[in-house]
Amino acid sequence: MAEKLYDVVGIGNAIVDIIARCDDGFLSKHDLAKGFMRLIDAEEAARLYEAMGPASERSGGSVANSIAGLASFGAKCGFIGRVAADQFGGIFRHDIRSLGVAYDTPPAPDGAPTARCLILVTPDGERTMNTFLGASVDFTPEDVDSGLIEAARIVYLEGYLFDRDHAKAAFREAARLAKRAGAKVALSLSDAFCVDRHRADFLTLVKEGADIVFANEKEITTLYQVNSFEEAADRALADCELAVLTRSETGSVIVTEGETLVVPAERLSEVVDVTGAGDLYAAGFLYGLTQGAPLSTCGRIGSLAAAEVVSHIGARPETSLRKLAAGLIP
Amino acid sequence: MAEKLYDVVGIGNAIVDIIARCDDGFLSKHDLAKGFMRLIDAEEAARLYEAMGPASERSGGSVANSIAGLASFGAKCGFIGRVAADQFGGIFRHDIRSLGVAYDTPPAPDGAPTARCLILVTPDGERTMNTFLGASVDFTPEDVDSGLIEAARIVYLEGYLFDRDHAKAAFREAARLAKRAGAKVALSLSDAFCVDRHRADFLTLVKEGADIVFANEKEITTLYQVNSFEEAADRALADCELAVLTRSETGSVIVTEGETLVVPAERLSEVVDVTGAGDLYAAGFLYGLTQGAPLSTCGRIGSLAAAEVVSHIGARPETSLRKLAAGLIP
Repeated sequence: MAEKLYDVVGIGNAIVDIIARCDDGFLSKHDLAKGFMRLIDAEEAARLYEAMGPASERSGGSVANSIAGLASFGAKCGFIGRVAADQFGGIFRHDIRSLGVAYDTPPAPDGAPTARCLILVTPDGERTMNTFLGASVDFTPEDVDSGLIEAARIVYLEGYLFDRDHAKAAFREAARLAKRAGAKVALSLSDAFCVDRHRADFLTLVKEGADIVFANEKEITTLYQVNSFEEAADRALADCELAVLTRSETGSVIVTEGETLVVPAERLSEVVDVTGAGDLYAAGFLYGLTQGAPLSTCGRIGSLAAAEVVSHIGARPETSLRKLAAGLIP
Repeated sequence: MAEKLYDVVGIGNAIVDIIARCDDGFLSKHDLAKGFMRLIDAEEAARLYEAMGPASERSGGSVANSIAGLASFGAKCGFIGRVAADQFGGIFRHDIRSLGVAYDTPPAPDGAPTARCLILVTPDGERTMNTFLGASVDFTPEDVDSGLIEAARIVYLEGYLFDRDHAKAAFREAARLAKRAGAKVALSLSDAFCVDRHRADFLTLVKEGADIVFANEKEITTLYQVNSFEEAADRALADCELAVLTRSETGSVIVTEGETLVVPAERLSEVVDVTGAGDLYAAGFLYGLTQGAPLSTCGRIGSLAAAEVVSHIGARPETSLRKLAAGLIP
């Protein structure tokens, strides 16, 4: 790839996570489907928060977590995403900037508060997410900082953000700018429900906008409305250059022209909180790509980063990923 | 003690902790004395926050942490302390109420934002605290909810709050109400620098207002301006009914008329973050008292709670202290 100022620039929801432990009974009582993400409004967010136990707050957001991971590897990164001018917005801005990430999206001057995700972590380490998108939904094509996009080697787009029309328009604009500047466009499908809600638009984006697609098994089979993983993988290969498909503890499958690689997951002694596992897998994979590592190594770096993040509460790394992956990076 | 609605009602700063890891070089660079608490203004708080790495946020405050610990043991508790009507105030209110603690201090309608403490945790597990008191300093005698105080068996006062004249007046009022209602008054000296700044007032409060005093070695020797721990302990005994003196890994010393007990600290495999150790020791000790346990058992329950809180980041328990201490409680 050409010499550019940023290895990866991400576009996604700018969210603060509110994380509390709960038991399975709490999920049933509040009709929450374990392991999924659902969108909630301000009223439901207030109601659920009141019912939750004591929590801790920290920055989140799927692609923002990936960008934090990439920064921890030592990559040069930028992020684009909307917060409000409130205390949670201050947390988000501080945390991402403190990693050396370029983040200059102006806070929304009025309207909804900064997005938050109420994350319930059950004793099995599974997370159930309830997202109030708040100021994140105000994301429009005007927020797409063309200077940042043009300075990126890879532009990474978050499927979760793809839930509103003006955000979709912003994605198309970002993809267009990226292609024109010779950047690769990577897309995370993020969530099977979101894919299901916006299948046609996702298909168009995968076919026309994205070079690299990240998805888990459920998301990719939902996108193509097929029953088998293998069939979905074939379809993905026909639509894009590189599909990186994660299968939880089974590991990941990397599909590209003429090659299908299976990468085992890291063995874990304990899973404390799976929040951010996919985001950090993507971080490691993309970091490998920017370093010119072979695809199998990219997958192994991804697995390593995912293993770090599930070993503690919270969706961002707590140790230097650069040190952790030292042996794998060329 | 008489039948009362609450085992313990605490009065203290209502603070949100902003916790980040740092190395020793960061402390030197910013002229921070490791292991101490200092008060900072809004400007310094903004400057230091910007320099800090990625953080997580959770409710703190010394006596508020003790009350959270007491609630985790199953005690009935109340808390009095001032936040602002902002997002951090919402975090504080949610977290303490979600533990079943009665907390009804109205948020300050205007003025400074909710108090925050920038906590830097070095690799040795030591914490260095930088507190912007914000809305907490607006605490006045009017905030002392007489109904809550009168319904308490023990009223627990936080020395940290004793830094402003109207807060001192509020403490004296709370002590007066408590005594009249037959409650015991417990006082935490909180911080050697704070004791040094307000020695005369602290001495008066210890002599006239407090039945039980919690202090570490540095605080109690600073209060009496003596060099030896033994001398300080003798002076404390002359001034109050019960002095509970903590000496970090050496354990604690409980001094009362005719009896001096030495309680060893729990053995720890790893100290992750000492924030809250003293607060949780006090929680365990007070819980033992409310259950009528012998003083040596109160000390052991305190040590157990302190050991739990230093085993993870953050100043409030992450496991049920009731279960942890099941064998010790009568």
